[in-house]
Amino acid sequence: MQKIIAIANLVKDWQFKDIQDIASNYQVKRADELTDVDYPNIEIQYGWNADLAEKYKMNGYDSLRWIQVQFAGINQLPKEIVTDQNIQITNMSGIHATPIAETVFGYILNYYRSLHIYKAREQEKHWAYAKHMSLPEKKMLIFGAGNVGKEIARIGQAFGLETVGVNTSGRNVDHFDQTVKTADGFKQVTDANIIVNVLPETDATQAVFNTDFFNRQENQPLFINVGRGSAVVDEDLINALENDRIAYAALDVFNEEPLPRDHPFWTHEKIDVTPHMTGQVEHFAIETYKIFHANLKAYAEKGDLAVNVVSKEKGY
Amino acid sequence: MQKIIAIANLVKDWQFKDIQDIASNYQVKRADELTDVDYPNIEIQYGWNADLAEKYKMNGYDSLRWIQVQFAGINQLPKEIVTDQNIQITNMSGIHATPIAETVFGYILNYYRSLHIYKAREQEKHWAYAKHMSLPEKKMLIFGAGNVGKEIARIGQAFGLETVGVNTSGRNVDHFDQTVKTADGFKQVTDANIIVNVLPETDATQAVFNTDFFNRQENQPLFINVGRGSAVVDEDLINALENDRIAYAALDVFNEEPLPRDHPFWTHEKIDVTPHMTGQVEHFAIETYKIFHANLKAYAEKGDLAVNVVSKEKGY
Repeated sequence: MQKIIAIANLVKDWQFKDIQDIASNYQVKRADELTDVDYPNIEIQYGWNADLAEKYKMNGYDSLRWIQVQFAGINQLPKEIVTDQNIQITNMSGIHATPIAETVFGYILNYYRSLHIYKAREQEKHWAYAKHMSLPEKKMLIFGAGNVGKEIARIGQAFGLETVGVNTSGRNVDHFDQTVKTADGFKQVTDANIIVNVLPETDATQAVFNTDFFNRQENQPLFINVGRGSAVVDEDLINALENDRIAYAALDVFNEEPLPRDHPFWTHEKIDVTPHMTGQVEHFAIETYKIFHANLKAYAEKGDLAVNVVSKEKGY
Repeated sequence: MQKIIAIANLVKDWQFKDIQDIASNYQVKRADELTDVDYPNIEIQYGWNADLAEKYKMNGYDSLRWIQVQFAGINQLPKEIVTDQNIQITNMSGIHATPIAETVFGYILNYYRSLHIYKAREQEKHWAYAKHMSLPEKKMLIFGAGNVGKEIARIGQAFGLETVGVNTSGRNVDHFDQTVKTADGFKQVTDANIIVNVLPETDATQAVFNTDFFNRQENQPLFINVGRGSAVVDEDLINALENDRIAYAALDVFNEEPLPRDHPFWTHEKIDVTPHMTGQVEHFAIETYKIFHANLKAYAEKGDLAVNVVSKEKGY
């Protein structure tokens, strides 16, 4: 039985043909062409969605060896697949770094230069100064010093920010003026002006941005969450904003997505809500394919994966 | 008769004392302490406003030798003072570079990541993607390659933009991948994705962003004006936006300021209006004083000026 490469990500026709050329002894099928009997024969899965999860669960995944997901985290994958030692997972973390960093600085500069305020004043034709702040010498604390955190820190340094990174070991990372261990990031660094969470979802990052954390902050920071919604205790964040422990928040990820219509975040005057879009790349099919292509070549030639292999222990 | 240093800029008490210490043979007076007979004895003027212009005109300025203005341009000064060869003028161009660059990237990232659109959608609690673009490899054309243009280009390169600068001579300038002469900037470079005007107001920069210019653009650029309002023909810009020659505009300066309430820019859906605020620094009294202090020391010790001397020929 010929093994299958199943494609659930956007691919252009030339990319589809390229996949067939690289992996000529596989059958290449788009997700909508798959029938139930195909699932146990899929060895390589490119792209993931909830529908596929359902189908694999029903029909089995005996041959599945490698999933290339189209996102940075893997929390959308079923636990039994993540823990299956026969299945390797690669992610897209690199391609999201650029648009996430761009969006994070969009949030920051909106707040520092009052641009949303001026936008709102256009309707009233109101010509008057709001508050203006500048970035040089402000301190930016970034939870997560991987591809994404590093890119945010790099741009941050260009704007003159002092950058402090938080990672498991506290080891030095490019573009961070300082790095601290996770526990110290939550407890020792209390004078940040801007806090950015880019941590992936793991058991260790649940509900970590809570009243304890917010109450430790001394400089009324801007809080930005582009990691995972489960890292934040929603009620605690709202309290911190009302008590001025946190000056403002920009949130792209939420405990429940889409953010429920009755959630107070939507209309809070100190919160920007965006629909989990920071990682959206302009040329998605091209950027994602670069990574899948590199991995597929390595897999076809040496049974190996080249880039973005997810550690099952760390979960990212 | 003791000569006077007149202060019309914000100064803190310690700064006032510092001025008196550096220039001990001068009388130091705040603008609101000046009487009509003082004007002919003012040698150094720190800060400028319309009220002072009136008073100097009425009372004379025989002793005036140096004006330190608190802004980047000098078009708020009366012509007869600018052209008076006895009077030197220094400006604040350096301190505005940081906040202007920050605001410019605020405009850009708002547009590229649709952040104003998401802000507006919060009221409707509308969770859906808008358009997302990214900066790497896009081309940014900057009219004006002085302090401000250079700072915008520096940040632009950090975001991966290709930067093209426009200056009088076309000479190379740091942080620009390419520089072109003024005429070529208006006519030869037609493939920019982002156009930023930071040119000061001179006779050569009146009404230069007109239908001819907009019609040459091939890539539906974002147009940003943080230079002077008189550089833009308002009606032509509106036409260019309606005809999709220009995709979007962010405007901080206008032919008439405050922007009149009946001006169509206020409510145009493809225009961001801000109230001439891009150059606003967070710690104005401190940043401006650094420059005045350096010049005052040089003036008191050597009769010279140290930084930011305005060329009377160039007008900036």
